[in-house]
Amino acid sequence: MSDAHLPFDTAFLDRLADVAIGTGLNLQPGQQLVLTGAAETLPLVRRIAVAAYKAGASVVTPILSDEEITRARYMHGHYECFDAAPAWLFAGMGQAYEANAARLHVSSENPMALSDMDPAKVGRASKANAIAYKPALEKISSFAINWSIISYPGRAWAKLVFPDLSDDEAQAALAKALFAASRVDVPDPVAAWAEHNAALATRRDWLNEQDFAALHFTGSGTDLTVGLADGHLWSGGAAKAKNGITCNPNIPTEEVFTTPHAARVNGTARASKPLSHQGSLIENIEVTFENGRITKASASRGEEVFRKLIATDDGAARLGEVALVPHASPISESGLLFYNTLYDENAACHIALGQCYKDCLIDADGISDEALDARGGNSSLIHVDWMIGSAETDIDGITQNGDRVAVFRAGNWTD
Amino acid sequence: MSDAHLPFDTAFLDRLADVAIGTGLNLQPGQQLVLTGAAETLPLVRRIAVAAYKAGASVVTPILSDEEITRARYMHGHYECFDAAPAWLFAGMGQAYEANAARLHVSSENPMALSDMDPAKVGRASKANAIAYKPALEKISSFAINWSIISYPGRAWAKLVFPDLSDDEAQAALAKALFAASRVDVPDPVAAWAEHNAALATRRDWLNEQDFAALHFTGSGTDLTVGLADGHLWSGGAAKAKNGITCNPNIPTEEVFTTPHAARVNGTARASKPLSHQGSLIENIEVTFENGRITKASASRGEEVFRKLIATDDGAARLGEVALVPHASPISESGLLFYNTLYDENAACHIALGQCYKDCLIDADGISDEALDARGGNSSLIHVDWMIGSAETDIDGITQNGDRVAVFRAGNWTD
Ligand SMILES: [Zn+2]
Ligand SMILES: [Zn+2]
Ligand SMILES: [Zn+2]
Ligand SMILES: [Zn+2]
Repeated sequence: MSDAHLPFDTAFLDRLADVAIGTGLNLQPGQQLVLTGAAETLPLVRRIAVAAYKAGASVVTPILSDEEITRARYMHGHYECFDAAPAWLFAGMGQAYEANAARLHVSSENPMALSDMDPAKVGRASKANAIAYKPALEKISSFAINWSIISYPGRAWAKLVFPDLSDDEAQAALAKALFAASRVDVPDPVAAWAEHNAALATRRDWLNEQDFAALHFTGSGTDLTVGLADGHLWSGGAAKAKNGITCNPNIPTEEVFTTPHAARVNGTARASKPLSHQGSLIENIEVTFENGRITKASASRGEEVFRKLIATDDGAARLGEVALVPHASPISESGLLFYNTLYDENAACHIALGQCYKDCLIDADGISDEALDARGGNSSLIHVDWMIGSAETDIDGITQNGDRVAVFRAGNWTD
Repeated sequence: MSDAHLPFDTAFLDRLADVAIGTGLNLQPGQQLVLTGAAETLPLVRRIAVAAYKAGASVVTPILSDEEITRARYMHGHYECFDAAPAWLFAGMGQAYEANAARLHVSSENPMALSDMDPAKVGRASKANAIAYKPALEKISSFAINWSIISYPGRAWAKLVFPDLSDDEAQAALAKALFAASRVDVPDPVAAWAEHNAALATRRDWLNEQDFAALHFTGSGTDLTVGLADGHLWSGGAAKAKNGITCNPNIPTEEVFTTPHAARVNGTARASKPLSHQGSLIENIEVTFENGRITKASASRGEEVFRKLIATDDGAARLGEVALVPHASPISESGLLFYNTLYDENAACHIALGQCYKDCLIDADGISDEALDARGGNSSLIHVDWMIGSAETDIDGITQNGDRVAVFRAGNWTD
């Protein structure tokens, strides 16, 4: 398992590891690190471990998955076993975050890994995992600790993005795209990230000043009014976790985002890109919202998976996030479809079904479920982003007085 | 990470996976499986996952380590961080075993992985890990659940065993030796294991009938009287865990073993093979026991690691296991030194420092620490086996009346 076989310059992995530990996590001396990813990502995971220990990590614990092992369950597992989950591992992770461990995920997954498996088994296993993972996820979604996600060019994923290239050429091409989007192909990645974070902060601060009541999206089959939660807060780029550490949860990130009002979303939305969800591809989603809830849903592919997803619980059919990304973002301009939410959501305006980020609400620390609900914050076992933005997207901000302010025209910020 | 590069016939991995799940664990439908090993062992781990799911496992969770990541800590970690441990992961494992998960470890470690690292750091980290792992280990050492260990021919390990061969040749040679010792190179591995288990049971039952007060080992620099615990029980081969499942904790296994009396060991013992302990090699150990405790210790290599080991706690300088293995065992007859306790301990009579197996005591279920102590059962954070048997080993059993019964002569059973 040496690096000799990799069809790209591994110096970029060293820089990506430094960005992950420095900019992504801003890992502090004495912190433990829970490091998740596929075994295929070891060339990067090893470099991240080195960077973490140099930064003073006390223990780095890799939790490595493997696509073949995951598939083996759906191929050979007994039917009655799909409601089980490794609750013990998720409980342990929750305990780690409780004790202020940082969390980094290296994303390299083949978005199609489970597309040929029985959707009923996938749905049951996903729900069981979501229930068991909830306490640990809560530490992440409430931003209790510094966390981040970065990507590695996995070979199966690369072949999906570049089906006409050879295995090696595809992995090299995906590597080039990921390194560029992650800003590690410039002479000083850390300085590039500081500049980019400052630009995102300017957008975020302007939106917070406006305090819009709602956003109205039109274009490409979407005509959707997204009410915003009472006392919503916009986030974007670097942000301070509750443990006091300022980190960048997504590498790359191009979005500013906030918490919509779970009962004030009306109209129709059409997905502008396919959604890759837990190994299945869902294409051409079209939904109708009435008073926050999806009342009609269809998809040209993966409709059953999508229907199961929004039936997970009551909050799964309501919004927990709305995010603005200009069509001129570098990821969008690459023209590539990554079949990976971390990338595709940073190429287009998007909405997320399910759990909201409490961090995107003023004074929501320790808020009760009832109070969260009253302000419009959605609760769910899921949080799934999908893309509605395109070169045709127009967005108006609707002020608390009902006035309209142009925010996006033809896919980009108006200024 | 395909199997194409492996320099041995992977059909043996399929059979080893079947032996691990069938004979080793006897995994039952609905059980979860905690599956630990190095990332390098994925070709076997994947097959084990398939065999486990076919047997009805509900969830198989691989926890994969990596030598480079482990080494990164000792090379780059800050000095003040070596008393930390991933307590959250071990707590999770304990919770899994509490819920009746089975546990399988795939051993492939390079015994020299940490030999060039600072022994002070290695000692501190080992102790921190031992303390954090204790509750989970207790489920294993008390035989609460079905568990097993098998081996995979790791490349660095293979080069240590076969230093004069090329990388591929060495791995092929180690693979051949491991497959033979694990009885997967015969037409019907499961039948071969049933026959072998029956032979071990005959030895075990004879020793239990004798109810010796002590064993007296002589030969090759050893002259040691090992008193046995009051109401000790001999074990060997397949055994029934407290969850009711009969399993083979070690694949391979050639030993019958019991619990010595922690205060009744006297004389001198000299190691007949090097001991590989957590990445360091300890050679030519010589110790003197007085009333159960080591009062003098030396080693020609790794003496500092050995001294730290026996200073872990009070029980670390006392015995928790004594085991009989004939010099004529297949592993011994291979003539190879494996630098791996699972193999070398099954080539020679051995003793273990540290924690005793409560399962090797009559009526010890839920026994209090005081009662265990009164019967001679040792307690410690460690359990480390090392080899004292050779072709010259004679063993007398000393009966409760003080009579002597010949048990071993010239390294083998007298009958
Ligand atoms: Zn988003
Ligand atoms: Zn999101
Ligand atoms: Zn033993
Ligand atoms: Zn032992």
